[in-house]
Order: sequence, then C-alpha cells, then structure tokens
Amino acid sequence: MADTYTIGVDFGSESGRAVVVRTSDGQVVGEGVTPYAHAVMDAALPDGTPLGKDWALQHPQDYLDVFQQAVPAALRQSGVSADDVAGLAVDFTACTVLPTRADGTPLALLPEYAARPHAWVKLWKHHAAQPQADRINAVAEQRGEGWLARYGGKISSEWLFAKALQILEEDPDTYAATERFIEAADWVVWRLTGVETRNACTAGYKAIYQDGHYPSAEYLGALNPEFADFAQTRLGQQLSPLGGVAGHLTDEAAGWTGLNAGIPVAVANVDAHVTLPAAGVTEPGRLVAIMGTSTCHVMVDEQLREVPGMCGVVPGGVVPGLYGYEAGQSGVGDIFAWFVRNAVPAEYYAQAEQEGLNIHALLEREAAKQAPGEHGLVALDWINGNRSVLVDAELSGMIVGLTMGTRAPDIYRALIEATAYGTRLIIETFEQSGVPVHELVIAGGLKKNRLLMQIYADVTGRPLSVLDAEQGPALGSAIHAAVAAGIYPDIFEAARAMGQVSRNVYTPNPEAQAVYTELYGEYRTLHDYFGRGANEVMHRLRARRRAE
Amino acid sequence: MADTYTIGVDFGSESGRAVVVRTSDGQVVGEGVTPYAHAVMDAALPDGTPLGKDWALQHPQDYLDVFQQAVPAALRQSGVSADDVAGLAVDFTACTVLPTRADGTPLALLPEYAARPHAWVKLWKHHAAQPQADRINAVAEQRGEGWLARYGGKISSEWLFAKALQILEEDPDTYAATERFIEAADWVVWRLTGVETRNACTAGYKAIYQDGHYPSAEYLGALNPEFADFAQTRLGQQLSPLGGVAGHLTDEAAGWTGLNAGIPVAVANVDAHVTLPAAGVTEPGRLVAIMGTSTCHVMVDEQLREVPGMCGVVPGGVVPGLYGYEAGQSGVGDIFAWFVRNAVPAEYYAQAEQEGLNIHALLEREAAKQAPGEHGLVALDWINGNRSVLVDAELSGMIVGLTMGTRAPDIYRALIEATAYGTRLIIETFEQSGVPVHELVIAGGLKKNRLLMQIYADVTGRPLSVLDAEQGPALGSAIHAAVAAGIYPDIFEAARAMGQVSRNVYTPNPEAQAVYTELYGEYRTLHDYFGRGANEVMHRLRARRRAE
Repeated sequence: MADTYTIGVDFGSESGRAVVVRTSDGQVVGEGVTPYAHAVMDAALPDGTPLGKDWALQHPQDYLDVFQQAVPAALRQSGVSADDVAGLAVDFTACTVLPTRADGTPLALLPEYAARPHAWVKLWKHHAAQPQADRINAVAEQRGEGWLARYGGKISSEWLFAKALQILEEDPDTYAATERFIEAADWVVWRLTGVETRNACTAGYKAIYQDGHYPSAEYLGALNPEFADFAQTRLGQQLSPLGGVAGHLTDEAAGWTGLNAGIPVAVANVDAHVTLPAAGVTEPGRLVAIMGTSTCHVMVDEQLREVPGMCGVVPGGVVPGLYGYEAGQSGVGDIFAWFVRNAVPAEYYAQAEQEGLNIHALLEREAAKQAPGEHGLVALDWINGNRSVLVDAELSGMIVGLTMGTRAPDIYRALIEATAYGTRLIIETFEQSGVPVHELVIAGGLKKNRLLMQIYADVTGRPLSVLDAEQGPALGSAIHAAVAAGIYPDIFEAARAMGQVSRNVYTPNPEAQAVYTELYGEYRTLHDYFGRGANEVMHRLRARRRAE
Repeated sequence: MADTYTIGVDFGSESGRAVVVRTSDGQVVGEGVTPYAHAVMDAALPDGTPLGKDWALQHPQDYLDVFQQAVPAALRQSGVSADDVAGLAVDFTACTVLPTRADGTPLALLPEYAARPHAWVKLWKHHAAQPQADRINAVAEQRGEGWLARYGGKISSEWLFAKALQILEEDPDTYAATERFIEAADWVVWRLTGVETRNACTAGYKAIYQDGHYPSAEYLGALNPEFADFAQTRLGQQLSPLGGVAGHLTDEAAGWTGLNAGIPVAVANVDAHVTLPAAGVTEPGRLVAIMGTSTCHVMVDEQLREVPGMCGVVPGGVVPGLYGYEAGQSGVGDIFAWFVRNAVPAEYYAQAEQEGLNIHALLEREAAKQAPGEHGLVALDWINGNRSVLVDAELSGMIVGLTMGTRAPDIYRALIEATAYGTRLIIETFEQSGVPVHELVIAGGLKKNRLLMQIYADVTGRPLSVLDAEQGPALGSAIHAAVAAGIYPDIFEAARAMGQVSRNVYTPNPEAQAVYTELYGEYRTLHDYFGRGANEVMHRLRARRRAE
C-alpha cells in the first residue's frame, strides 16, 4: 500500500513555507519557501503612500503566491504524486488581520481603496493602535469586564479589536466599506475553499471570544458608539474547532497548488499553537516554549485558571477539549541580537571569523567556560519590555555587578540567564495558579544554542525536550491536515504518530541548579523592586526619553 | 635683572617628570620625562622571584634616574642656566613606601634582601595588604579610635600601616631589618639633601598622624604585639610643614642634576595635593578635582569637620594653617576606558579612524548630540568600587533603562553622567558636614573632554574652572620650591603669582541643570538602595564571583 501525505503551509512574517509530510510517521519529504514580494510594509504602501510610525502592513496577494509557488515546489521536491496527498492545512502569524468585502475580496485590492493604509493587512507587529488598546483596557477595567483576567489583565495593541477600532477612528470610510474583518489565517482558507470560517484559536486569543461570545455591544459602544455593532456585523459568529474540516480545495486553488480539487482543507491555526502537536504535546504538564526573537509559551490543561500576566486562556485553543494557555517573553533572541550588534567589540568578531564561527557561537563557547555565578552579574530581561508576567511594555533592561573585569561573554551569559529567570517566573506563576509544569519542550531557532539550553534546564529545574523538526509550525499544520483528512481520528493520535520530539535532551545539573536558585532569588528581588512599583524609575526614564 | 626659576619633579606611577618654571609668572619653560626602567613590578622581581596576586612594587633606583636624566633634560630644553635655578621640590604618588636602613639605604638594594618581595618599594596600588587593612579597621572600631572618623570611617589597604603590617606578618626577617619605613617622596628628598624629613601631607593622609601623634602603641599592639613599637621606632617623629625647606642639594645630587649644590630643596608633597597651588587654589570653597583614571577631590577649609566617606582631613595637609580635605571616586577615566575596550562595536572605531579621531572623541561628539535624559538611562559609577562616600570596594556597576534602541554613545554618556552624579553627592556630603563648595576646579587629563566638563557643570550646578598647565603636579612642586627658596613669603602669594587657571570656563545651563536634578534624584535612590543595605546584591554577587 502506498504512503499517504499531507501538506502544511506556515505563513511567517517574511515568507511562507510549505512542507509535504508522510502521515505514517511525520517525516518531512519535501519543502518549498516563497518570500513575500512586499515583505513587511512599514514605510510606504506599494503606490508610495507613506505610513506612520509603528505601522506594519502586508499585501494579501503575497499569501496567495505561496500557494502558487511554495506548494508546487515542495511537491516537486518530494516526488510525491498529488494523488497521494490527502489534505492541506495552514498556520499563520496572529493577530494578522484584514478588511474585506462580503465575498472575501480584500479592500486593499480594490482600486478605490488601494491608496488607503487602513485597507491593507495589519501584520501582528503593527503597533500603531496603542491609543485604542489603552482605551480598550481602561474601559474594560472600569466596567469590570470578566474576560480581562483571561488575558492576564491586559489586551494588547497587537490584537483584533485595537486594530479594528483604529480603522474606525482614523479612516471611517474604509471602516464603512469593511463588510468582514478577518484573520489572514482564515482568509487564506476562505480563498482555498470558498468557505468563510473562523478558527477557535485566533478568535479566542486575539478577538476576546470567551464563554461563547465576543465582548458585548454595550462594551464596544462604550469604546465608540459607532463600534457597538462591530462584532455582530463584521466577525464570524460560528467558530470552527481546530482539527476540523474548513472546506475542500476549489478547482481554482487546485490549479494554484497542483493538488487535487476536493481534498479537505483544515481549519486554520496560529503558528505558535500548532507547534504543540508537532512536538507531540497534547497533554497537560508540558510547556512548549517557541524560542526565537521572542518566546511564546503554550500549554494545555484540563482546568480553567486565571494566571496573572498570561497572554490568554482559550478552551480548545490548542486541541479540542482542553484549555490552551499562552504566555510570552517579549524579548529573548532579539536581546542577544541587540547585544552582539551594539556591545561586542571587534576582537570577538575577528576571532569568530578566524575560526569560522558566527558571533553567537563564539560568545556561547566563551561563556560556557565559566561556572554559574562566576561572572558576578544579574540582569533583568526587559530590554524589549515585559509581557508575562508583568504585562508592561514600558519596562527596560537592567544589569548589576559590572566590574573592571567584566567582559562581553560575561554579559552575554548574564542576558541568557536573565531570560531563563523570566521563564522560571512564568512557570512558577502558572503553578501557583494551579497549572502544573513538569517539563519544557523547546522549539524555535534558539534550541540550537546548547549553553542556553543547559542554562534553561538548570535555572528552571525541569528537563528539556526538543522539537526535532526544523519547521515545527508547518509540520503541526500537516498533522492537523491528517486529522481533517480522516487519517487519524483526532489530533491526539495524529500528534502521537507524527510528532517529532527528543525527550529529556537536557537535564538539570544539581550543583548549577542550586547556584541558580540563589541567583534567581536576586532576580526576583530586582524584578519586584523595578517591576512592581517600589521604584518606578523605568517608567520615568521612558517618559523622559519620549519627551526629549 | 635676570628671571629666576625653580624645578618641580613629579613622580607618577610609570615615569618621573621634571619642569623648569619661571617664578615670576609660573610659565613652564622646559620639561623632561624619564620612564621608570622597571615600571610597575606586579608579576616578578628583577631576579625573577614571582609576586602574588594584587602586588605592585617599584625599584628605588628608577626614582634616582629621574634626577639624573629628566632634570638635566628639562634644564637643557629650557636654556636656563643652573645659576638661575633657585630651588627644587618633588611630589609623588602616595602611599608609596619603602623599608630602609638607618642611613636611608633601601633594603631592596642590599644583596641579602634583593630576592625578598617585601624589601622593595610598595607602590600606592599594591593591594595585597587587604587582610591587614580589614584588621586595622575592625580593631579601630572595636577600640573606638577617634581618628577613624578623620578618614571617613575606613583606612585603606593602600596606606602605610597596612603595608607595614603585611611585612611584619609575611616576612619577619625583612621587618626586623627595617630601621626606617618611609614614603618614597621623603626618601628621594633624603637622597637629594642627606636629611631625613617626613612631610605633613603623607603623614596625615596615609600614616594616620592626627592631633600630634600616630596611632598609639596600645592600638598597634592590639593588631600584633610585635607591631606595638612600629611608629615609635620606624617612622619620623618630627613632621615638616609643606612649603618649608627640607635641606639643601648635596654635591652628589648636584652632580646628578646639573644644578648648583646648596640650593634649597622643599619638603616633599603628594601629587594630588600639590595640584592646588598649581591651580591657584589656596582658599576655602573651591574644590579641586584631579580627574584621570580615578578622581581625587582636594580642598581646604578653616574648620575641622568630620565628613562621611572622605579619604582624610589633615591640618596643613595642603597649605599651612588650613585643614586639607580629600575625597575620591575610585573609577572615572578607567570606567570610560573599560567601556571603549569592552563594549563598543567596531563601527565606531572604523568611523573614528576615518575621521582621524580617537574613540573617546567620537563617542563624545555622538553623545553630545542628544539632550539630557534623552537616552533614558541611569547608571551607578561603581565599576571600580566606591571610595567616597560609601567607602566600599565591593560595590559594582549598574545600569538601568536599556532598550532595543540603546546605542554605545548613549551608554558612554550615561557613564559620564554617573560619575558626575557621584561628584555631586560628594559635594553635597561636604556641604551637609559644614564644608561649603562654591566652585569646581578641574585638573587632570579628563579636562579635555568638553562634553564631560559641561555635564559636570550642569549636574553639580557649579561653575567649572580649569587648570591651564598640562603638568599640574610638577608646576605645583615648582611653586613649593619657590617658597622654599624664599622668592615668595608663603604658598598663598606664590600660588597667586604662579598658579595657572582659567576661571568659569563652563557654567551650568539652567534647563539641563533642572533635568539633571531630577535624574540625580533617581541616582540617589538607586545609590542608597544598592549602596546602603536595602539590597546587598552587589556584595553577594562579588562573594560568589570570588568563590567560583
């Protein structure tokens, strides 16, 4: 009997990636990547219309190009026949969202709206809706909205309502022309199948869908009277559970992809959340950390708990029947990138070049020569603000213990440790809220840094498992496609068969763990001193910085 | 009538420098420099005997070479005839001290002691006597020794008694052979004149000479019974006032220098303290800051006050009839040097090279483009510990406010500001103790950094005057020589005529001053939090660092 395959398509910030996966064992047999022709538009629209500060837009056609280029390329590379492909699924960055007509036509592709910035896709990192987010939070607190605690006490400017409200308030004409406001994840599925769906994951995490409904018309009207009917009129009212079938591939989409028309297309997913089945994680107690420029922590549990500072808890937000929890650290890999760009002298680059290493590998090796605590430093990992557990973007980085003997690898190691302390604090906050964490499963680019991995094991006192696949989200999508295609009865069995994980690759060293527990105590004291109101110096410095 | 000249000789850490100065107006007309052949011996003696950690020794013959080389060279360069040279004076680093026989012969130059490290000159920065200093402080506190408050509450390991006690306890034979224990400053004067003197400045600041006597035999005996008679038997009992005549040039020394035998040689001085007359400062209210790798603050006042954290107060310690006060910041220029060596990326060096600037000048220019507070940073200037006012070498550096937008010039400026805040705190501590400070007079290498100077004016709210001479201490010595030679009746008139200072070169900008007063408030809060016991994290990190 011939093998069966599914296609997973992962839409990132700069490109889309398709994989062809064997459903029997999760082996990736082909891959294709399509960079977005317009990448991230943060300065101007394609016609030259300039954009404001903190804007980040995308072009909807770039997403469709991925189906027309990356999918056929992956299929070609795999040598698999379209007849052996049983289904397809997608995952996407989120909240990445766009206004469309009732038939799904993006306003951005209509000539009369093409010059209006608000007609385009707002990428997750569009940060220009902060005033709206501030009002969303203030009004929610004032009205005592119960859903606020499900998001750790704060709604982000990156999420759906802030972005939609910004359109209404800055470009009422475009808002009036918006018949549907939809996640790009669901929009591409719509394009593939002709069926409009709303996946439970983005609706729960990004559109405040809790206990069976969006925020009330009264609440939305309190933000702006014109906004009262927004959820009722522009969003989808029926959510689709993850792992379900959204629809079937249209003839047009079959033409784009080279796949057979009529194969099932799964309900869309979010890139971080779909990584869990890729790592074989569908049960409580195992926290998946997707570590890249920032870290996203996702896990599932049987209980609904309100965890301070989490990004959100959503029933069925990761797998059906369990609560999906998300937390985050807003700066991790980008802190190390900032450091090597701005604070590492030339001699280290020269040494790295001589040895054919990249700068991170060299600093990792040098930092690994020392024992925990030897550098005498403690840092706070807030150089890009703090999401969990303080939810305060105005915080900033701090380092203490500098001496005349402090060298770049010392600070590099201290920054790694600081992010590990941040993870430990998130784990402890989950546990104190009744959500136990026994194991860390690491995905994302930073899993390659062995020193960092060992430090995370030592600091958190948890064994570290590692996602083996290079493209976790795309694999996770292919697993969802296998469920949608009926090859497995549910996501639990599919993840068990197709997930790629090495268990307990790093285990805590008891001696290092003891030292780090003491240093974590220092971190906690400084965390609370600078982060919980004892000394508001970071806020004052930030305000002064803006004022100058 | 022909002009009259004097010679000033300044003994630094790496070289000795002689100047020929016109006594009518303080003009430097000739100069010569002799690097010490053995520089600082911190790894081994000349015969290869290895030295321990934190040792720093010098070779006594190197000092005499300065008389034989730098003085004749300065004279030659000036074109001045030896017949027109009326006197000579020296200043020295302190406490730089050596054991000798009763006739002044250094033990280090006797073959039977040449292989013993303790027989050599201990340079000011010999830090291996810390255990002895700790005991000196503990026993003084326990016995309630009144002199402790005259040193801000702590005796340094760099000073005379710690160094002497270390000899006794680590090399009793050398200690037994030590008939005189003498500052190098006084020893070179002894060599020039054949007369043993002890200048009031080093005795007061470095040898705890207060209220007419050294620490009591009971106190010294409590440190070590063998040490009880040390001050009585090895130190000089008669102090010589500054500006006085120590003796007259011997025939031998005339042969070394090319000067006429019999000219007066002044009582020796300390390099920092002799800078005051060079800057024309002999009256209260004007704080002279000698800013180099570290900063030494010296001023005079009519009253005896006990200022927390000062380095010392000595009657006649700078000029006769006034109390000389000294305070210090243990890291200033060396913090900036540490920063450019360890935390500035290659692009700044490339830019500096392209423009023919040094790296400090480039960073200064870039940092000067921003307004006070714009970088959003506050640092604590303790990367090399803290002398005044906390007197705590175990403190360390801290910086808060780091963001993804923080760049090297931002941190460079924040470090400059941190040292300025440290100076402001010293000034306020003096004033709160009843010693007013109206003006800062800047000497030392850092006076060339215009951004730094303006920041000091803005942060301290005081006008800054600047010492004009490149070689302040040598000029100060020449002024002392003019008094010893009887050209001026006292140091006050001599300093008025020969001192070189530009008044009010930098004045506070009121707007910047207002911003800095707020930021100084942040510094104060962090200073007290990290430095006065609220959070002893710096001590714990230091201890852990040593333990690994």
